[in-house]
Amino acid sequence: MPGPHPAVAATRRAVRRVLEEIPSPRHVLAAVSGGADSLALAAALAFECDPRRPAVVRAGDVRAGAVVVDHGLQEDSAAVAASAAATCRDLGLDAEVVRVEVAPAGEGGPEARAREARHAALEDARLRVGADVILLGHTRDDQAEQVLLGLVRGSGTRSLAGMPPRRGHLRRPFLDLDRATTRAACEAAGLLPWDDPHNDDPRYLRVRARALLARVEDDLPGTSAALARSADLLRDDADALDALADDLLAHVGGTSCPVGLVADRPAALRRRVWRGLAVAAGVPAGDLRAGHLAAIDALAVDWHGQGPVDLPGGTRAVRLASPPRIRIGYSPPPRVR
Amino acid sequence: MPGPHPAVAATRRAVRRVLEEIPSPRHVLAAVSGGADSLALAAALAFECDPRRPAVVRAGDVRAGAVVVDHGLQEDSAAVAASAAATCRDLGLDAEVVRVEVAPAGEGGPEARAREARHAALEDARLRVGADVILLGHTRDDQAEQVLLGLVRGSGTRSLAGMPPRRGHLRRPFLDLDRATTRAACEAAGLLPWDDPHNDDPRYLRVRARALLARVEDDLPGTSAALARSADLLRDDADALDALADDLLAHVGGTSCPVGLVADRPAALRRRVWRGLAVAAGVPAGDLRAGHLAAIDALAVDWHGQGPVDLPGGTRAVRLASPPRIRIGYSPPPRVR
Repeated sequence: MPGPHPAVAATRRAVRRVLEEIPSPRHVLAAVSGGADSLALAAALAFECDPRRPAVVRAGDVRAGAVVVDHGLQEDSAAVAASAAATCRDLGLDAEVVRVEVAPAGEGGPEARAREARHAALEDARLRVGADVILLGHTRDDQAEQVLLGLVRGSGTRSLAGMPPRRGHLRRPFLDLDRATTRAACEAAGLLPWDDPHNDDPRYLRVRARALLARVEDDLPGTSAALARSADLLRDDADALDALADDLLAHVGGTSCPVGLVADRPAALRRRVWRGLAVAAGVPAGDLRAGHLAAIDALAVDWHGQGPVDLPGGTRAVRLASPPRIRIGYSPPPRVR
Repeated sequence: MPGPHPAVAATRRAVRRVLEEIPSPRHVLAAVSGGADSLALAAALAFECDPRRPAVVRAGDVRAGAVVVDHGLQEDSAAVAASAAATCRDLGLDAEVVRVEVAPAGEGGPEARAREARHAALEDARLRVGADVILLGHTRDDQAEQVLLGLVRGSGTRSLAGMPPRRGHLRRPFLDLDRATTRAACEAAGLLPWDDPHNDDPRYLRVRARALLARVEDDLPGTSAALARSADLLRDDADALDALADDLLAHVGGTSCPVGLVADRPAALRRRVWRGLAVAAGVPAGDLRAGHLAAIDALAVDWHGQGPVDLPGGTRAVRLASPPRIRIGYSPPPRVR
């Protein structure tokens, strides 16, 4: 008997590796859009959990399901979602469609708001059925695009670190596979993926990043894989510095930080402390710019009598004396002197 | 009287800012290749230090010179160097040509070896005349290329951090200016820069990165500036983590590290400790790969009886017992069991 197609085998191995990390009995959901990545994910999950396979070769005592998210952003989105759910049921998975409402405006761009709404809906679905984790179908190509987008924005270590393989109850088994593998796996399994027309719309920055990356790959082959490797290293660095900053913040009561606590720390740590302090004081994290953090830092370590630093969300950072400390909070309008 | 051309003014401001950081009396050298970046640098330095300008507007008590490096890698390199030195003398700088020998083979690629030879020759020249610092003409475009090259190699935070504005006795005043500004400054000053034919040779990875970046900039304008901003943030992060790892290494005697000292630290710190330990044990830093460090790390924190880890340069890492520690060093060949 010939083995499965190599692409199918690769997707199954990737899913199995994640399943093995979860103590039995397992209950695992796949997040499905109907695209090639998530269909390949659903197929691999269904295979690994198929109760008809001998217990010794499958992932132990496991329940598997699929959550299809309908963002309602396109006319035919309900039909696309229903069709994806039907495919998942054919594969042997319990499948549920959840409709999410993406806020038409608000913090972050439309892509960020769609992601936030999607993650909230997935977490709701997970809690409803009591599943351990939700698998997402992001591939190495998605990761490389994410890093490239961070670079184009001039971001720091955390955003260049891309998507983590695990965060909270989310798992991304395919981060080491490329998109071509998930497409090949679908083809070999006779699955017809849905192609999101948004993926060809050059108004989206991500679509332009994708096109760009394809051209870079032609010139400097291996770039996508290299970007993903960089992301792994950067993620470790960001995790380490965030943990150290959290240790410092744990010594800070409320939203006022003694200058003496941070003055001798490296700039990278101080910047993270100011960010944590500002967010705790109510500054929307997505609105904080490097310039804000640099201005707060100057209050602490380059003090020459400068005034308060205005921050997004109507807050401000001020330096208070004896002992010197930085306080971030909502302030009355400055008095007329 | 009209002011200088904006590009000329920008180069002068950038040089002045660096001069102001050096206590008077200053002695400053510019490293000159004859290309637009370094000619603009030499011209700005000569202007800022011109003894004919009133003392109140120039950079105090300062001696300025130029060191022209002849790598001897191209047929006409001696003539190019002589011509650049003559231009520097016309600008009013003491100018010296130093000929460097680039090792035909050895650690790193030919570009890395040329850089190493150049930096050694510049430092020799600095010590010979007793100068405080040497200015290098790298621009924001060079920085962006450097970051892109690090990404294409799948490197970590340190190599993505690009070139620092100051390291040892080197200063890079132009890291916030783009190449177009240095070209415009040369043109406005009537200086004829030399165009290195290597800059058009697609066999060099850097040349391909430069071409690629030009295309990226067309598609996603602002990318070069963003890459340079990312480099600044990443440099702070790398500095912070390196300093923390150095603190740990200071507690390690010789080339053996107690597992207990590092086991609870984040992966990013452990990786740096293993790197420091390996380099101290004689492993050539450029030959250490992420895989080596991961294998050493597994000896420490994922120990299940695995054997020694072979490292470049004929060294190996072993786990010793009671108390558990990792030792890196030259070892006799394994005994036949």
